[in-house]
Amino acid sequence: MRVNGEHFRAMSWHGGADGYLQWIDQCQLPHRFTLKESQDAEAVACAIETMEVRGAPAIGAMAAFGLALAFAADRKHFESYWLPRFRRTRPTAVNLFHACDAMEASATEATDRLMIDAACAYADAEVERCRKIGEHLAEVLAVGERRILTHCNAGWLATVDWGTALSGIYHLARAGEAPSVLVDETRPRLQGARLTAWELSQEGVSCRIQADSAAAWMMAQGKVDAIVVGADRIAANGDVANKIGTYMLSLAAREHGVPMYVAAPESTFDPHCPTGAGIPIENRSGDEVLMAQGVDGDDREQVIRIAAAGVGATNPAFDVTPNHLITAIISEEGVWNP
Amino acid sequence: MRVNGEHFRAMSWHGGADGYLQWIDQCQLPHRFTLKESQDAEAVACAIETMEVRGAPAIGAMAAFGLALAFAADRKHFESYWLPRFRRTRPTAVNLFHACDAMEASATEATDRLMIDAACAYADAEVERCRKIGEHLAEVLAVGERRILTHCNAGWLATVDWGTALSGIYHLARAGEAPSVLVDETRPRLQGARLTAWELSQEGVSCRIQADSAAAWMMAQGKVDAIVVGADRIAANGDVANKIGTYMLSLAAREHGVPMYVAAPESTFDPHCPTGAGIPIENRSGDEVLMAQGVDGDDREQVIRIAAAGVGATNPAFDVTPNHLITAIISEEGVWNP
Repeated sequence: MRVNGEHFRAMSWHGGADGYLQWIDQCQLPHRFTLKESQDAEAVACAIETMEVRGAPAIGAMAAFGLALAFAADRKHFESYWLPRFRRTRPTAVNLFHACDAMEASATEATDRLMIDAACAYADAEVERCRKIGEHLAEVLAVGERRILTHCNAGWLATVDWGTALSGIYHLARAGEAPSVLVDETRPRLQGARLTAWELSQEGVSCRIQADSAAAWMMAQGKVDAIVVGADRIAANGDVANKIGTYMLSLAAREHGVPMYVAAPESTFDPHCPTGAGIPIENRSGDEVLMAQGVDGDDREQVIRIAAAGVGATNPAFDVTPNHLITAIISEEGVWNP
Repeated sequence: MRVNGEHFRAMSWHGGADGYLQWIDQCQLPHRFTLKESQDAEAVACAIETMEVRGAPAIGAMAAFGLALAFAADRKHFESYWLPRFRRTRPTAVNLFHACDAMEASATEATDRLMIDAACAYADAEVERCRKIGEHLAEVLAVGERRILTHCNAGWLATVDWGTALSGIYHLARAGEAPSVLVDETRPRLQGARLTAWELSQEGVSCRIQADSAAAWMMAQGKVDAIVVGADRIAANGDVANKIGTYMLSLAAREHGVPMYVAAPESTFDPHCPTGAGIPIENRSGDEVLMAQGVDGDDREQVIRIAAAGVGATNPAFDVTPNHLITAIISEEGVWNP
């Protein structure tokens, strides 16, 4: 999608078998648009862990490129070291494991060139999946649902291009439907205020940010027609693991009869998890809650402590929304009512 | 309650009829403990508007002292200018209007000295009310409810001393019951992370901060025995206006069978509002959502932009929780099940 009118993907391969991976450092958004590049598999794994690239589908694509680089540089330890190294980077997103499995399968008898091709094909297929998700979601939303609430970032930054939940909004906007989006800021890392608001405004989509806890009240005021979110993992029964706060949002949505749509590629489904109870939930550092990152009046990056000193924080990064609270799950294959 | 082991009130009068009002500047907490003092009624009104002093009962007491100062300095315009001036400072808290009415009643035939006495009596009565609220709440909580979630700041800073919701926790702690408190950070102004966590740690009460949107998930994990919050205004039918997010919290509480207690003095009840629909909800500047305040690594105050530039925010400061979602309202008079 567009950044200052120019087209970018969240990450992309440049050159042939001896080329390099380029990605947008999302930790620096929205204040700085910074491209990073590397030929080093460890650097790619670190970029996933430090959330320079985040979002379940984007993590999968990054891991595919990272494993292609690992294969070229250190084929001998590809299976013993690099596959487990990448599988450990983020525990909740299942797309990561799909990508690792796909690259493991490609590695049999592969050359460096074929492994890079496999990673590029994985990323291109992800883009096509997201485009289709957006088409399906735009159809679901087309019946008068123009005032849309979203939580976290399920946009093109979280995938490779288009996004999942936001892909539907981009499709609506390109069809001239003029959606307006209420963006949950999404504490603690503020992916909504930082990334979703930035994405939407770069695409010219009308949006406003709100505190996450205002969502139920905005619904009570009749100001929300639909909710669209992404997913980090979907159990076989349709339970959805997504950014912390999604579950609380779904309770408010049910109370106010607001449809709750989850948009995610099929790779987000985990047939090995019968229900959401089997999905591991990542607990991240309490510092994410206690500190905030931004720019001061002189446009300098600052990390500040916003909480009382000497008090710790609890920071579950995801939660599980049970299937009965979800109106529909939209994937590249179509619409499913769990 | 205690600050570094010494006793303070949120605000207190020093000296006789020509004395001065001293208050804790809560905008600078928890990073700086700053006492402000003034004999100027306009400065007191501004301290309410800029939220140097906030919390419904504290606003009422501040207005009482401010009106006593106005009476002494500008008796001629007491009714025509100063009473409406103070009534306009914050629209949601009804205690403000009670305090203004009480001071208006005292003003007939009063001397400066009597007006100061009336304000001091108002504040002392508020302290006694909060102490009683805490006693009642501690009794309600005593049946095994030790892991308590609270939202915003309903502590002594929000009153004059003791607090409302936190008064119950302080009573439990002094009785050796060792409550542990999960503190909603309370976006956008972070009264939980800044003030409640600071208050609790100064009193030696075990606490941890969490993102507001984590509350439902923590309840789903069985980690919350009860919720206690304050109130800014309570309608005749028991609908409660309180900090934005209280309503969303109450929906999650019902889902998980967690009792939802509201603690507030009788002065928070507004017999002129039959239901919550009649309570005016203050919309505050979007900058509260887009910016954050804190200290950097060198302990310098910083205000930083945390959101994407060029995107606005919606910022309703309060919401209304309907009576049927509230387990009990605890006032100085006892326990009421609306």
